[in-house]
Formats: sequence, C-alpha cells, structure tokens
Amino acid sequence: MAISHLHCLQSVRVSFPCRPSVSNNYCYGRDNFTRKSSSLVYASTNNLDRDLHLQSKVETVLDSVKWDNRGLAVAIAQNVDTGAILMQGFANREAVATTVSSRKATFYSRSRSMLWTKGETSNNFINVHDIFLDCDRDSIIYLGKPDGPTCHTGSETCYYTPVFDLLENQQDKEDKLALTTLYSLESTIAQRKGELEVPQSGKPSWTRRLLLDEKLLCSKIREEADELCRTLEDNEDKPRAASEMADVLYHAMVLLALKDVKMEEVLDILRRRFSQSGIEEKRSRNSQS
Amino acid sequence: MAISHLHCLQSVRVSFPCRPSVSNNYCYGRDNFTRKSSSLVYASTNNLDRDLHLQSKVETVLDSVKWDNRGLAVAIAQNVDTGAILMQGFANREAVATTVSSRKATFYSRSRSMLWTKGETSNNFINVHDIFLDCDRDSIIYLGKPDGPTCHTGSETCYYTPVFDLLENQQDKEDKLALTTLYSLESTIAQRKGELEVPQSGKPSWTRRLLLDEKLLCSKIREEADELCRTLEDNEDKPRAASEMADVLYHAMVLLALKDVKMEEVLDILRRRFSQSGIEEKRSRNSQS
Repeated sequence: MAISHLHCLQSVRVSFPCRPSVSNNYCYGRDNFTRKSSSLVYASTNNLDRDLHLQSKVETVLDSVKWDNRGLAVAIAQNVDTGAILMQGFANREAVATTVSSRKATFYSRSRSMLWTKGETSNNFINVHDIFLDCDRDSIIYLGKPDGPTCHTGSETCYYTPVFDLLENQQDKEDKLALTTLYSLESTIAQRKGELEVPQSGKPSWTRRLLLDEKLLCSKIREEADELCRTLEDNEDKPRAASEMADVLYHAMVLLALKDVKMEEVLDILRRRFSQSGIEEKRSRNSQS
Repeated sequence: MAISHLHCLQSVRVSFPCRPSVSNNYCYGRDNFTRKSSSLVYASTNNLDRDLHLQSKVETVLDSVKWDNRGLAVAIAQNVDTGAILMQGFANREAVATTVSSRKATFYSRSRSMLWTKGETSNNFINVHDIFLDCDRDSIIYLGKPDGPTCHTGSETCYYTPVFDLLENQQDKEDKLALTTLYSLESTIAQRKGELEVPQSGKPSWTRRLLLDEKLLCSKIREEADELCRTLEDNEDKPRAASEMADVLYHAMVLLALKDVKMEEVLDILRRRFSQSGIEEKRSRNSQS
C-alpha cells in the first residue's frame, strides 16, 4: 500500500450483499467482521446504493482475474511492514470478494472445498491493507498486518525450512525463517545479544562490544549520523552516502536490540504517521509554534 | 537468507549431472551458468563424489516436496534486500533442482510445458541466495537478487495493479507497485522531491521543507540521532525508542533522496558486509588500530 494513499483507502468500506453462490456460513457467519459488514448493507438506502455500486465494481475486477480451470488463483499474504511472505494459499472469486469486504485475508481451501478466513480459528487474522494483482492477473498479493503468528505451527510465517541448510545438514533445532536483509541483520544482532552472558575467548565481535558498552554505542550512533550529514554538506559521492546510511542503520539497530524494540514496530509507527499525514503535519505544526 | 550464514552458503556449489528426465536444453543448454555448472561435475573424481553426494541430498529434499497432481508447486521469487515479491510461477522437480544448481530462479512454464529460467531471454536473472519451503512443503520461496526489472512489461515486479484503486477508479496512468512500508515511504519522499520545481500555495509539507533546506535537514538528523541515544542513556521506554528510530529513519531517508540513493542500495551494502563478516570485523580491526 502506498502510504500516501492509505488514508483514503481506509475510508472505503466495501460491503455488499452475498452473491448467491457465497455460502451463508461466510457472509453471515459467526465472525463479527462479516456480520458487521453485512449489516452495513441494510443501514440505509444510500448505503445500499453505494454498496451495490461497489459490488458491481468488485465483480468487474473479479471478472478480470484469470481463474484457473478450478476457478482458483494463487494468493500470497505479505506483511505490509516487514515484507515477510506470511503464507500462500489459493483464492476463488468468493475468497477475494470476502477479503475485499472484510479486510481479512480469505482463501479457498482445496482440501475442505470451502472458504476459510485465516484466523477464524486462531484469531490470528491477517488485516488486509491492499490487494494487488500481477501482470497476468492470475496471482494475488494480500498486503496486510497479521494479528499474530500466521503458521498453524505457531511460527511467524509458514516459510521456515531452508533448502540449502537441508543440503548441508545444517538445519538447526530451531527453525530458520525466510528473512530479508534488514530482518536477518536484526536476527543476527538479537543472537549476539542472547550470547552476551556466554563467556567468549578471543576478540569480541563489534556487535558484542557495542551491546556491552552503551557509551561506545551512543558515540558511534552520533558519529555515524554526523558522517551521513557530511555526505550531503560536503557533496560526497553516492556510494559514500549509502555506506554511511548503512552504518547509521546498523548501529541504531543495535540500540533497538538493547531496548527490545523490533524494526517492525518502527515501521508500524511510520506507516501510521504517514497514513494520518502524521510526520509531515506534526513537524509542520511544530515548526510554526 | 540469514546474513550470518551467507558466506558458508555461498561456498556451496551444488552441481550435479543431469537426471535422465532433465532436458539437455536446460542442463547442457546455451546458458553459461549451466554449462559451467555441468563441466564442474567432471573436473575431478573428488568433485564427482561430492556432486553425486549432493545430488542424492537434493533428490531427498525434492522427494519431501508435496508436488500437486501435475508435479508442480507454487514458486515465489522475493527480493532478498527489499522483500518485494518479484513474481510467482510454478516449479517442478527439475526447476527446483536447476535453481539449486545454477542459483538462477527457474520455473516450469505450464503454457509451454518446459522449464524456463527467468532472465534467459531478458538477461534479468534472479540470483537466488536461498530457497525456503513452507510448512506444508507445497510452496517455495526463491529469495534472491534480481539483475533488473522482473516483469516482462519492464516493471520492477509483476504486482502493480492495486485492487482498491481499481474499485475507486483511482488507477493512475502510472502503475502502482505493491510496496511495503519502508518503500512506500521512500516513494512518497521521492514524489515530494519530484514536485520541488512545482510552485505550491499554502503551507509546505515537512518533507518539502527538509528537501529545500539542507541545513535544516542535517540539523534534524543529528538531533533525532541524539534523541534516539538518549532513550538508552536516560532509560526511556520502548515506545519512545521506537518513535525516535522512526524519526531517524525518516529524516535520513530524506537525505538519501537528495543524494539519489535507494534504501535497496543501503541494504545491499549491509548484506555484503555481514556476509563477509564485514561490519563486525572491520570495526573490530579499526578499534584495534
């Protein structure tokens, strides 16, 4: 979801009556969100008109999807803040329509031949902020925020089996999530923090030294921020700016580890601020005062 | 890929002879990487033994995948640095085996009934750093670095059609990529930068003010870095630390925009540094000198 559009997108409550082929279990079922969504339809004539109009548009979008011969398309749920791929399932027309309406990631279970909304049993819903179709219109991203672990095993995501580790017989007892660079770095720093109590021989890693010496850490953060600024002030080249930003990010993330703050929390704040025209307006107000 | 494991993972050259069912087009085909990979098999008896051993392990891993009745599993290519979902296709045994061997994301084309390596025509390969299986073992992530735009349309990824925009008739002339929070913020800042030449009435946004006033921007970056440090030094609470980190990140990203540096470049640096035991060893060396 583009942050700049979030506010207007969130104002859209796409709620529409059940299509005949949608099971009542899901459209008027036990989940509060679907009941709420359905009841909105009958709130007023204006609402009904608006909802029928939206329903028509949803149908048009669904018509544009290239469903396979089983009436399905691949649906991938992705964490809007971290980018982690949470799970992958399949969706049919009703699953996508329900996701649009409820804003909860909904799939079609091929084994049970029925719709299922992720979280309907565990309460770990995936709250969908936006939906994207691919160029071929046969693959869908549900971009959203999970309420809790997505995998039925309790893992944050379903992807925790690394093939190259299997090939090297290096699969640890603990699962290894598919992490992208920022979160791999965060994981590495967290691992160093977890090892602080373990006595070590030899030269300590730089991360360990920073974790053990708050004064050193803070002096480095201030120093790296200053060096980043000087790439602009002294008109240094692009690679220098990128390198200094990497230093800022890494050292700041060591501090976050000490404070038990996850990058996901930081990104959640940024998303909310921008969706409320937050940082920009707040700063602008402050500068006026 | 966990950064801490990258170095050892990259040292694994899983190269093995073609299985009888693998088309020579792909195992000994026109691509340099497959020729090189195949020729390695015959380099020495030791290599042959090692490769046969690895081939056996690959077969075991492939046996553990739950292929559907067409012999396929969903394969999702994800940018290792940004987390962007680049594309989604399907893979059969040979596609995954080829990806393991060549480290280039390879799929099975259902329409052409043949393997295809993304980039074999465009040269925009996806260089695979790690492969993950999901909990059900019927879905695969190729976590890698693209050489260029992934989509055949020239778009960075295949996911540029936002459903909620379609429903609101807000689809701009330009496509809107599925962006997670950090990259949405980057995109918003870039948009503000692009509008700098356009005269504006009313109060300028905070981002615009920062972009127009380098002195203000640098003073804010130094100030926010200081405030982040003080959350540790003064033992402030977690939400305060997360909030200050959000400020550091946002203001630093405005500077990056002025320097024409992408966050992906910064993350690329961090990945390479950590994969070479970079930051930690470098800093440790520097601190000794």
